[in-house]
Amino acid sequence: MGKIFGGMAASLDGYIASADGDMAWLNSSMVKGEDYGFSDMMSRTGAYIMGANTYREALKYNSGGDTTPTFIVTHDTTLPKAGPNVEFFSGDLEELAEKAKASTDKDVCLYGGANLLKQFINQGLIDEIGISLVPVLLGGGVPYFGALDSMKKLKLVKCKTFGSGIVILTYHLVN
Amino acid sequence: MGKIFGGMAASLDGYIASADGDMAWLNSSMVKGEDYGFSDMMSRTGAYIMGANTYREALKYNSGGDTTPTFIVTHDTTLPKAGPNVEFFSGDLEELAEKAKASTDKDVCLYGGANLLKQFINQGLIDEIGISLVPVLLGGGVPYFGALDSMKKLKLVKCKTFGSGIVILTYHLVN
Repeated sequence: MGKIFGGMAASLDGYIASADGDMAWLNSSMVKGEDYGFSDMMSRTGAYIMGANTYREALKYNSGGDTTPTFIVTHDTTLPKAGPNVEFFSGDLEELAEKAKASTDKDVCLYGGANLLKQFINQGLIDEIGISLVPVLLGGGVPYFGALDSMKKLKLVKCKTFGSGIVILTYHLVN
Repeated sequence: MGKIFGGMAASLDGYIASADGDMAWLNSSMVKGEDYGFSDMMSRTGAYIMGANTYREALKYNSGGDTTPTFIVTHDTTLPKAGPNVEFFSGDLEELAEKAKASTDKDVCLYGGANLLKQFINQGLIDEIGISLVPVLLGGGVPYFGALDSMKKLKLVKCKTFGSGIVILTYHLVN
């Protein structure tokens, strides 16, 4: 059975979005030709899990043609279904983790947001965390990591630096 | 004239101390024989700047025999002077930065704490920031970076990984 992994770009001070939602800090930091592993990430992913807010954002860009199983954690029964691959879920996250893993032989991508990631970390349901550290101090905004119930040990499994100054760090959670 | 640099160990979620002040997360992560650059840092340092709280902590371990100029930012006139090298300062930080740099041909270490670092970043008075990312999620505590007045661009100048999973990242501030 595959792993559940999450990954996001964050500023050095740990924000995934600026206070005003402007993404220029991220877009202007990325350099054409640098392989940040997007295609690797997509090819290892057999299912997605995301929260309602992330899904609402994704809906803006989604053509509905994707066939990858996508589980949306939400109590909002009015959300539109972007495609036949989309399933809404409002129960226990441990059950969801098992369900998502059982839906594919590949890995499961926890696509966000930060609140859902926090819950997965707190419940010990995530195996791998990736962070693309962008060389900028945002000084405020939406934090990547939320408050946790207890300390979690990590194991560094990969560190890759780019000419742009972006550093991709990959960790496994140690249980 | 030398640079002003700051550096600290932080958890992946950006805390330099746990909520209860226990440092086991840091001490148990460091591995004997790994060179985290402490001696390099000491040999490049010709003066220290620190806040009152950091100084109070340092007093517990200070023999008073050190001769490196050490500037303490404080309004507290009751603080004991650990040695002839210690000077208390309560004025403008830009003036302090010039004063500290003029006191040595070497670099100036902004030793902490987080609040003073924040002020130095906000006022554009720091040239280099180092962070030793410890492979742990503390989940709460004292954050390394505070809220800033505006976004600051960084340039990655060094990234060093260790078998322990600690990653030392060094950035210059781009003005």
